[in-house]
Amino acid sequence: MTLDHTHDPAARSCVPGADGHPDFPIQNLPLGVFSPGEGAGRPGVAIGDHIVDLAATQEAGLLTGEASRAVAAAQGGDLAGLLALGGGPRRALRTQLFALLSAESPERDRVPPLLHEAASCTLHLPARIGDYTDFFVGIHHATNTGRQFRPDQPLLPNYKHVPVGYHGRASSIRPSGVPVRRPHGQAKPPHLDAPVFGPSRRLDYELELGVWIGPGNALGTPVPVGEAADRIAGFCLLNDWSARDIQGWEYQPLGPFLAKSFATTISPWIVTPEALAPFRIPQAARPSGDPDPLPYLLDPVDQAGGALDLDLEILLSTRASREAGLPPHRVARSNARHMYWTVAQMVAHHTSGGCNLRPGDLLGTGTLSGPEPDSCGSLLETTQGGKVPVRLDNGEERRFLEDGDEVTLVAYGRREGFASIGFGACRALVLPAS
Amino acid sequence: MTLDHTHDPAARSCVPGADGHPDFPIQNLPLGVFSPGEGAGRPGVAIGDHIVDLAATQEAGLLTGEASRAVAAAQGGDLAGLLALGGGPRRALRTQLFALLSAESPERDRVPPLLHEAASCTLHLPARIGDYTDFFVGIHHATNTGRQFRPDQPLLPNYKHVPVGYHGRASSIRPSGVPVRRPHGQAKPPHLDAPVFGPSRRLDYELELGVWIGPGNALGTPVPVGEAADRIAGFCLLNDWSARDIQGWEYQPLGPFLAKSFATTISPWIVTPEALAPFRIPQAARPSGDPDPLPYLLDPVDQAGGALDLDLEILLSTRASREAGLPPHRVARSNARHMYWTVAQMVAHHTSGGCNLRPGDLLGTGTLSGPEPDSCGSLLETTQGGKVPVRLDNGEERRFLEDGDEVTLVAYGRREGFASIGFGACRALVLPAS
Repeated sequence: MTLDHTHDPAARSCVPGADGHPDFPIQNLPLGVFSPGEGAGRPGVAIGDHIVDLAATQEAGLLTGEASRAVAAAQGGDLAGLLALGGGPRRALRTQLFALLSAESPERDRVPPLLHEAASCTLHLPARIGDYTDFFVGIHHATNTGRQFRPDQPLLPNYKHVPVGYHGRASSIRPSGVPVRRPHGQAKPPHLDAPVFGPSRRLDYELELGVWIGPGNALGTPVPVGEAADRIAGFCLLNDWSARDIQGWEYQPLGPFLAKSFATTISPWIVTPEALAPFRIPQAARPSGDPDPLPYLLDPVDQAGGALDLDLEILLSTRASREAGLPPHRVARSNARHMYWTVAQMVAHHTSGGCNLRPGDLLGTGTLSGPEPDSCGSLLETTQGGKVPVRLDNGEERRFLEDGDEVTLVAYGRREGFASIGFGACRALVLPAS
Repeated sequence: MTLDHTHDPAARSCVPGADGHPDFPIQNLPLGVFSPGEGAGRPGVAIGDHIVDLAATQEAGLLTGEASRAVAAAQGGDLAGLLALGGGPRRALRTQLFALLSAESPERDRVPPLLHEAASCTLHLPARIGDYTDFFVGIHHATNTGRQFRPDQPLLPNYKHVPVGYHGRASSIRPSGVPVRRPHGQAKPPHLDAPVFGPSRRLDYELELGVWIGPGNALGTPVPVGEAADRIAGFCLLNDWSARDIQGWEYQPLGPFLAKSFATTISPWIVTPEALAPFRIPQAARPSGDPDPLPYLLDPVDQAGGALDLDLEILLSTRASREAGLPPHRVARSNARHMYWTVAQMVAHHTSGGCNLRPGDLLGTGTLSGPEPDSCGSLLETTQGGKVPVRLDNGEERRFLEDGDEVTLVAYGRREGFASIGFGACRALVLPAS
C-alpha cells in the first residue's frame, strides 16, 4: 500500500490537542457514526479529542468530487454505503480531510464549527452489520486452547490448511461503552451427572481485531486472494465475550452458539487501510516446515505485506480497583502479527465457495494471543482454564471475570519514523446476571 | 391455538381455482413479497394460483383497523415491520382477507383487480434476514449422521439437554427458484495426505422447516418458553444445501462454515401459525426414559400442542428425467413431528442467555428425517455417506447430487375434518461449478 504525505509524521493539525494524540492524530482519521447527545447518528471522523461532522463539512462546501460522493453515500447514520464505494472515494475523503484539518489549511478558520467534543458525543455501530463471521487465525490461541483438550495434538490437522472460521451473531454486537450482562446458560460441571442452568461462572474476554467489509461480491463469485485487500474497508477492536462453561457443554458438534451470542463489543471507529499502511509487515507467522497454503490462498503481494504490526493490550479494572482510584491492570500485551492467516486470506477463503460478503459485514480474526504467558488474549489461556489465577496490581485475583469488572482492549500502530496511531477503546463493564 | 371459522373446511373462495388447491386454499393465506414482472417487491397473500396485492387491497379501502395497520407496516417490499407487530394485526389481516376472498363476500366483485397470476410473478425473500440460526432438532438425523462418525455413541451427551444450534449465513439465503452453484472448497479425501481445492464432490440437500421471527426481544431479556410461541410469525421450507466433503474437513473445532454458506433455499411464503393451528400435536418425540427438559425449556401448553404434524417430501428430478418427461422422483417422505425440541423451546433456548432476536430473523429446525430408511432428510443419510446409492425411478443412481439435478421440498398439513394446506415449493436447480 502506498505511503504518501498523509503519513508524514511531521504533519500538524489545526485542531487543538490532535498532535501527539495517542489514538487520533491527523495521520489516522478513522470513520464512525456519532450523535452529539442523544439524537440520530451521523457520519464523523475522529481527530484528537474531537469529531468532525462529515455532513456539516459537506454542507459547508469543503469536500469535492469523490470525497463528497463518499459522504453522500453515508446516509442515515450508516456507513455501509460509503464502505461499499471502496478505496477511491475513501482515499479521496482522507486526502481532503487531511488538507482541511492540517495546521496550514487555508480553510482552518472554518473548521471549529464542524467539530464536536468527543466526550459529549455518543458513538454508534458504524453500520448495520449484515453478517458477522469469526475466524480462528491466532495460532497461539488455537494452540493454547487446543492443548487444554488435546495435550498431544493441540492443533487439529486442518488448522494449517484452512483459515477456520464460523458464523457469529450480528444482532448482539454493541459499540464500546455498552455494558455486558452476564448470561445464564446450560453447563455441566464435571462433578455433576446432569447439566444445570444458571449464570455463567466462567465469563471471559477474547482479544480480537474486527475487519469491516467494503465492496461485496455477488453470490457465486469468489474474491481472488490478490483482490481481497480491496474489499476491506477498515479495522476495529473486537471483544468476543465468551462463557466458557456454556461453551464447553454446547459446542459439539456444531460449534459455539449461546456461549458467544450474548454480546460482542467493538471499538466504534473504523481505522482505514490507508491509516494502517505504515504498519504493514510480511506474513511471518508461518514457521518454516509448515505446509504451503493452497494456491487460492497465496498471493505474493499479500505475503510480502499483508500482515499487521499492531500492539494490542487488555486492561482490566475491578470495582475495588476503581474505588481505590487505581489505573486498570494490564492483563496482557500481544500483537496482531500473531495471525497465521492474513485478512486477505480470510476474505479469499470466505468467498472461495461463492459465499457473498456485503458492505458492512464484519469479520473477527479470532483471539490474538502471543507466544508468551503474559500475551494471552483470553483468561482461559492466562489462567490455564481457571486453574492458575492471575494476580492483579491491587492484590485481587481472577480466574474468570467477576461482576463489576471492566475490560478494555486497545491497539496501537507504532513505527520509527511514523506517527503512532490508535484504535480508541473497546470497553465494557460486566453487569450481574439479571 | 384457537380454531375459528377461518379453519372451516367447507369455506369456499370467490377466487377461481382456490378451492381444493393443494397449497393455498382460503384456509391458508400465507404472506409473501412478490413483484408482477421485474419491478420492486410488494406484500401479497397467496390464494390458489393467484396472489392478492395487499397494498392495492389497502388502497381500495378493503382493510380496516389492525389489518390495515399490518399492511401499512410492510413497507418497501419487506414484511419485517408486519411480522414485528405480532399476532393481533396478523390475525386481523387473516380474518379480513378470509371474509373478502370468501365465496359469499359482499365485496367479491372488487377482488379480481387485486389479483395477479402467481405464474407471472417473481417471489422474493419476504424480509431482509438479520440473523439466521440453524438448529439440530431432528433426532433421527442427529442419530443417523452421528452413527457415521461414532457407531457406539451416535448422539452426543448434550443432545437430549440442549437444543443444539449454530449461527448460519444470512447473505446467501435465496427464495425458491434461484439456482444453486456447486461450490469449490477444500477437502481432504481419505486416500490423500493433504487437502485439495476444487468443486465439491459430495453435494447434498437437507430437508428443514424455517421459522420466521416476529416480535423480537431486547438484548439481555430472555423470552420465557411460555411466551415463545408469540414471537413466531410463521414457517417456510428450508433447504440447507451442504457440501459434505468440505464440511468433513473444515468443521472442527468451530462447526460448519463454507460447507453450508454457499446457499440456502427457502420457500417464499410465510405460512402463519393461524393457518397451522389444525396441525398442532403434543410434543411426542421424546421417548420415555429420556431426561426431562430443564425448567426454562418446559411449558405445559407447549408440551401439549407445540409440535407440528406436517407431511414433508423431497423430490428429485435429473436432467435425464426431465428430458424424458418423467415426474420428479420422490426421494423421501418425512414429517415435522420428528423434532426433539419444539420451536418454542428453540426460541426460549436461543434467548436464554440474553441473545436478542429481531423481526425477520430466521431459524432453521435442522434436518427432519424420520426413523425409516425412506424418510431420510439428506443424501448423507439415504446413501449412508455415499456408500449405498439410491436408485431413481428412471434407473439412474445417486450417491450425492449431480449438476442439473433439481431438488424440491414440499410440506402439507393434512387432518381429517380440515382443509389440507401446503407450503408451496422450495426448489432449486444445481448448476455446475464455475
